[in-house]
Amino acid sequence: MGYEHLLVDRDGDHVTITMNRPQRRNALSLSHMRELVEAFEEVAGTDATGIILAANGPVFCAGHDFADVAAADHAGARDLLRACTGLMRTIQSVPQVVIARVHALATAAGCQLVASCDLAVAALSAGFAAPGGKGGWFCHTPMVAVSRSIGRKRAMEMALTGDVVDAVTAAEWGLVNRAVPDPDLHRATAHLLERATRGSRHSKALGKQAMYAQFDRPEPDAYAYAVEVMAAASQTPEAREGISAFLEKRPPRWPA
Amino acid sequence: MGYEHLLVDRDGDHVTITMNRPQRRNALSLSHMRELVEAFEEVAGTDATGIILAANGPVFCAGHDFADVAAADHAGARDLLRACTGLMRTIQSVPQVVIARVHALATAAGCQLVASCDLAVAALSAGFAAPGGKGGWFCHTPMVAVSRSIGRKRAMEMALTGDVVDAVTAAEWGLVNRAVPDPDLHRATAHLLERATRGSRHSKALGKQAMYAQFDRPEPDAYAYAVEVMAAASQTPEAREGISAFLEKRPPRWPA
Amino acid sequence: MGYEHLLVDRDGDHVTITMNRPQRRNALSLSHMRELVEAFEEVAGTDATGIILAANGPVFCAGHDFADVAAADHAGARDLLRACTGLMRTIQSVPQVVIARVHALATAAGCQLVASCDLAVAALSAGFAAPGGKGGWFCHTPMVAVSRSIGRKRAMEMALTGDVVDAVTAAEWGLVNRAVPDPDLHRATAHLLERATRGSRHSKALGKQAMYAQFDRPEPDAYAYAVEVMAAASQTPEAREGISAFLEKRPPRWPA
Repeated sequence: MGYEHLLVDRDGDHVTITMNRPQRRNALSLSHMRELVEAFEEVAGTDATGIILAANGPVFCAGHDFADVAAADHAGARDLLRACTGLMRTIQSVPQVVIARVHALATAAGCQLVASCDLAVAALSAGFAAPGGKGGWFCHTPMVAVSRSIGRKRAMEMALTGDVVDAVTAAEWGLVNRAVPDPDLHRATAHLLERATRGSRHSKALGKQAMYAQFDRPEPDAYAYAVEVMAAASQTPEAREGISAFLEKRPPRWPA
Repeated sequence: MGYEHLLVDRDGDHVTITMNRPQRRNALSLSHMRELVEAFEEVAGTDATGIILAANGPVFCAGHDFADVAAADHAGARDLLRACTGLMRTIQSVPQVVIARVHALATAAGCQLVASCDLAVAALSAGFAAPGGKGGWFCHTPMVAVSRSIGRKRAMEMALTGDVVDAVTAAEWGLVNRAVPDPDLHRATAHLLERATRGSRHSKALGKQAMYAQFDRPEPDAYAYAVEVMAAASQTPEAREGISAFLEKRPPRWPA
Repeated sequence: MGYEHLLVDRDGDHVTITMNRPQRRNALSLSHMRELVEAFEEVAGTDATGIILAANGPVFCAGHDFADVAAADHAGARDLLRACTGLMRTIQSVPQVVIARVHALATAAGCQLVASCDLAVAALSAGFAAPGGKGGWFCHTPMVAVSRSIGRKRAMEMALTGDVVDAVTAAEWGLVNRAVPDPDLHRATAHLLERATRGSRHSKALGKQAMYAQFDRPEPDAYAYAVEVMAAASQTPEAREGISAFLEKRPPRWPA
């Protein structure tokens, strides 16, 4: 399948989706977001176990495309934001583990994209910002994702100042899992994804999706939900095989 | 407007509200809380863009005034706590960015005050505690605010021990944005507030208020809300100006 | 009262409950969980003020007992998970402060146990993992507790990789309150529990239980609840004594 602004490459069990509109700083135009959703859904239907979200060019992703927004009336802006929210939800609902490989600046909805991936590794050259805070259009929807990854005071600082947070600080705050020297970015990302995609892919997919369903819920609600999911999961071939292999002290053989 | 226990000073776009009852360690008597609410509401109606909450004396704020509490029956205690909660809500609902400038100890409802400001800078001499945990009246309402800024285990430690957390630890935990040497406190606070009050004040006010509305909500609810707020905001003069200025590569001119 | 797999020792105001099934790595079989619930409930009815949850053997707790799980059908697995959730709730509802003293590896429901205690101190030899993420049965219910103590990206990393997080990292992430050298573990745990159990035990019990009730709730709901609890608490003998002692500058005398 061909994409105008994306490169999709499979290497073993992992697929890299690379945003490739560097001259527009990988801005999330409506068509770019639709291509991303399509690409994630395409990979979702395969037996790949992990997805790396990467980008070409000097900026990882600059957020919404202001050319689109400038032309949009209220309904149009709403469509853009709903498409953007849909993209974030797609990332969290595909069965694969999704990791952002952030080599450069990620701003506004681009920062939201990083916050919405399951995992993220940043190069020291990367940076993160919600620049709407120093302009005229506040980063309301990006901050939904960002504020759920970092503390409240830090979320307020990013949202209100709009200033760039460096990669080391982003790792300290929990916005990304690691900050690594630029030359190590590919290797560190691949290594973390490798570790995150072991085991049964069916069990992992359910696990990932259930995490998002229970986050943010009051603890008793989250438990009520998680108990049912985990009890049902205990009867799957993957769980039976994992438990048998453990008890028989042999390596497990996962169903495809 | 004159206040008995507050100093209110405007300097450019920013107003400093200084608690000035040092002999009572700026304890939040009912009248002191009412003055604070009045002062925040007075500034809310002006074109100021930022508010510094500061204090005079050896203690930033010691929480509720025990003389008040000792005299209060159940209904009276309820009134005190509702007034206190109302003060916290006022701080979060005024259109200005509110930053706490904490030079000394902030305990109980005084610690809640810091946790409830949008941003906070602490001097190394500052400290934070919920001392009800080691007494007879637990800091229930202060911990609502404090536990939303720091992790759960840390909140439990503060609540149960009642011991003072130093400024550096408070910054590591995300209770304050920065811990700085005492002589740098004013400059660091002013600098962070300067950065947090750039851009359109209308957009910023909506942004700040919407952050509190979406915090703590399950992510899908938060998105549903944020999409509507941000779509509507895209049609405001501020957003149009910000986007046009960006596309035309010129500095924006914000409506007053 | 005698337990098959637990040791229960009282020393002054504190009770140590020690999991003592080292040959099964203190795995949470149904009977082991029932004994733990019984032991916590037994101590709950005494005048002890604090509980240390400890373990004997090379592993703190390995989570569910796979022999049980292997034999369980859907209803049986559900019973195991509901018993496990009930154990976590018991820990959070007893009036005593509960602190985990983690000397070694805590995995799956064992890691959940640590996350569910009010406080936790870990030796540098301790480690924390949700290994279901690399097997066939994902750690759904353990992650409910763990994800509420640490950031979202970190929770995803633990859940998806299943790898061991060392004690220092666990302390940085807020999963435990402290990481200390192995020889200091007992002393550091006792010291933190000492500080966490001062003051009125009635006030502390209400305080602890109310914290769990307000966590995860939207801030306005949490305030509505906390105001009522704290207003009612203001009229208790403990609160009156604490406030009087403070105003009269004398040490308080707590009711038994």
